[in-house]
Amino acid sequence: MNFDCSSLNRIYEEQYGWFRFGVNLKKNIFDNIPSNIPEEIIETLVDSDGIKVERIISKGHVSPKDFWYDQDKNEFVILLKGSAKLLFENDVQIILNAGDYIIIPGHKKHRVEWTDPETETIWLAIFY
Amino acid sequence: MNFDCSSLNRIYEEQYGWFRFGVNLKKNIFDNIPSNIPEEIIETLVDSDGIKVERIISKGHVSPKDFWYDQDKNEFVILLKGSAKLLFENDVQIILNAGDYIIIPGHKKHRVEWTDPETETIWLAIFY
Repeated sequence: MNFDCSSLNRIYEEQYGWFRFGVNLKKNIFDNIPSNIPEEIIETLVDSDGIKVERIISKGHVSPKDFWYDQDKNEFVILLKGSAKLLFENDVQIILNAGDYIIIPGHKKHRVEWTDPETETIWLAIFY
Repeated sequence: MNFDCSSLNRIYEEQYGWFRFGVNLKKNIFDNIPSNIPEEIIETLVDSDGIKVERIISKGHVSPKDFWYDQDKNEFVILLKGSAKLLFENDVQIILNAGDYIIIPGHKKHRVEWTDPETETIWLAIFY
């Protein structure tokens, strides 16, 4: 038998090709949270030329003592679950709860001073 | 009197300068939802060189009949409240609920087929 599958393959590719790649499937930002989080979890969701999107999961984690983020890129960060306290230079503190977002300009020094130790804090961070 | 305010101004600038600009203050993605939403609301949260971040509020809104988005840019979109149905070419439907996100490659034709008419649907979209 000499059945030509090319049409079938083309249709399959058109219909499902894009959806075969896990990166393009629907996912949920609140899924796949490990029950045990010894270290902060950082997952890259997008890594394109000028932009990176990360999901960060904290549970009581804070920046190391005397450590300050001093990033080249701007950061848009939204807290989607839990709560956290950011500390900026000059002792400005910002408390973030679910839905709060802030834009941190590049080289604006900051650190994570506190995250809720009782529940996961889920951040969506866009670096650009 | 000839008091020199430059030091004071410098300190004020250092302490509060960055926070004076509304765009950099903490905001909440669920705040400032009008009670009446006759048209879909699109607010630009970030508009930088290669990236745009938008908050979109729908309430029963759908794409116009026979209209397909055919965007140059890739889109990372996360639904933060409500629910919606996207339709892609070849009749692939994707239902999104709170926390669901998807990456739509540039020129992947799609349309919003349905959004919840009973409650606001809040999208955070990143175009890159």
